[in-house]
Amino acid sequence: MALVIRVGPAREKWWQEHMQSLLPEIDCRLWDDPGNPDDIEIAVVWKPPAGGLKCFPNLRAIVSIGAGIDHVLADPELPKHVPIIRTTGEDLKIRMREYVVLHVLRLHRRLPEIESAQERREWLQLVNPPAYERRVGLMGLGDLGADCAKALAALGFDVAGWSRRPKMIDGVKSFAGQEAQNGLSAFLNRTEILVCLLPLTPATAGILNAELFSRLPKGASIINAARGGHLVDDDLLEALGTGQIGSATLDVFHNEPLSADHSFWDHPKVLVTPHVASLIDPVAGGKAIAANIRRFLEGEPVPDLVDLEQGY
Amino acid sequence: MALVIRVGPAREKWWQEHMQSLLPEIDCRLWDDPGNPDDIEIAVVWKPPAGGLKCFPNLRAIVSIGAGIDHVLADPELPKHVPIIRTTGEDLKIRMREYVVLHVLRLHRRLPEIESAQERREWLQLVNPPAYERRVGLMGLGDLGADCAKALAALGFDVAGWSRRPKMIDGVKSFAGQEAQNGLSAFLNRTEILVCLLPLTPATAGILNAELFSRLPKGASIINAARGGHLVDDDLLEALGTGQIGSATLDVFHNEPLSADHSFWDHPKVLVTPHVASLIDPVAGGKAIAANIRRFLEGEPVPDLVDLEQGY
Repeated sequence: MALVIRVGPAREKWWQEHMQSLLPEIDCRLWDDPGNPDDIEIAVVWKPPAGGLKCFPNLRAIVSIGAGIDHVLADPELPKHVPIIRTTGEDLKIRMREYVVLHVLRLHRRLPEIESAQERREWLQLVNPPAYERRVGLMGLGDLGADCAKALAALGFDVAGWSRRPKMIDGVKSFAGQEAQNGLSAFLNRTEILVCLLPLTPATAGILNAELFSRLPKGASIINAARGGHLVDDDLLEALGTGQIGSATLDVFHNEPLSADHSFWDHPKVLVTPHVASLIDPVAGGKAIAANIRRFLEGEPVPDLVDLEQGY
Repeated sequence: MALVIRVGPAREKWWQEHMQSLLPEIDCRLWDDPGNPDDIEIAVVWKPPAGGLKCFPNLRAIVSIGAGIDHVLADPELPKHVPIIRTTGEDLKIRMREYVVLHVLRLHRRLPEIESAQERREWLQLVNPPAYERRVGLMGLGDLGADCAKALAALGFDVAGWSRRPKMIDGVKSFAGQEAQNGLSAFLNRTEILVCLLPLTPATAGILNAELFSRLPKGASIINAARGGHLVDDDLLEALGTGQIGSATLDVFHNEPLSADHSFWDHPKVLVTPHVASLIDPVAGGKAIAANIRRFLEGEPVPDLVDLEQGY
């Protein structure tokens, strides 16, 4: 029985070694050198090339190296009968929490302005409101979003969350759906720092657009740690230009790596981070993946198994 | 009955107005225009000029606009019989927590390197250990230090604290004193990111020096949010030069504002923030100060009253 791994070329050897040591009973092969395709029963993938997965006739499960599965569903020739398992776990959660808390605090405390002042050798004592007067809004309250919301609330922020269905999280105001009273508009109206952690589905693609930006208070900041497909790049550039959006912290992009000529790179109001918010590494992430594969092969319940009706 | 306020010139009017509205029964005057000095019974001060406080013969209490009182004790002619009240409270705590969490995360997630990569339009995916593998050490576990330690532990960091006497804080390893086993050396040996929140006393002045730096793991970072007097500036510059210290985040300086020709300003491994970690503003800070003054005048217990034997 064999497994095939597909990640970026920079790390595939590292992944192969780790997965092999975690799953010694399975032959762990690389995507570009899979041996006999009939052997492959598990594919562990990040952005598999279109038409690739259907070449393994005995495939029993596709494992997404990521909490999202949009990069798998993007394959128009995806073998639809094969179950998909996403990757979650404490590690992913801790890393996303670190990223979101860091970047919310960085904007809340206006660190970019303090850093510019340092370049001018200027002692610029900005007075900020304390956290409890800063309204942070999270779009998406799944595993990762709910954890981030709790962490921000624990630090003292005034936190709200928006999700498809209402969620109850201690200390977090819940908004859901599109209703005027307690839906998206009400959520956006009160949000000074907006964090996107939504799954990418047909319903959420392009949700960060001019219309949404116009419903935020003027000068609000956005942090996108979900997927590049949530954002309409040109709408953001336009909103940054008018000042409707004060700044953007972007970890994800339509094309990754972000092409060297993209105008985000040298935009003074954009921080580009290279899809590192919650990087899955073979050491910690590999453990979660191996555990899921074992559960699946032994017929135990796999909570990370995707509900394809929901699309995430 | 009158009160005199001494803060930086930029904000003294703002402070006077707020204190006056919070304490309508007391005449709130400015330091440079105190009227009859005999009227002054309370002085609310930040860095009072030497010899200034002794000019108020009927002074009953000195209120420090800050958690530390070193800036008051620095006056060689300080009237020693007058009790000193420091300023603490939720606001101060929340702000310091924001600062410490922000800057620990910034270093943990190597944000300066990601920002430099952005300048080069480089997609630099650094793999960091998760928070639970990052050892953060707090020097000083008073009100503010203990709160920061708890917040960092809640985010997942491996947190230790060092204080004069051992402290019990859930999820935080406690080190105290100078003993080899569980004292300063053991604390420093395990600390990758060192946060100084000590009170400034004769025992702690200059504690951030070459000898201390040499006991940290090579490349450790320091964050000083306490007082400039804790740090030996030249020792830090030397240690940054050799790489013994990887980077420094400094909020406090021997002379403030930091003089425009100081080499910290354009040092590539130093972030200068202008004593904003926990800025006390007249809105929130004024409330805490007014409450303390009322308690004092009405003869109620004032927990913020300083124990002058300890010196903080």
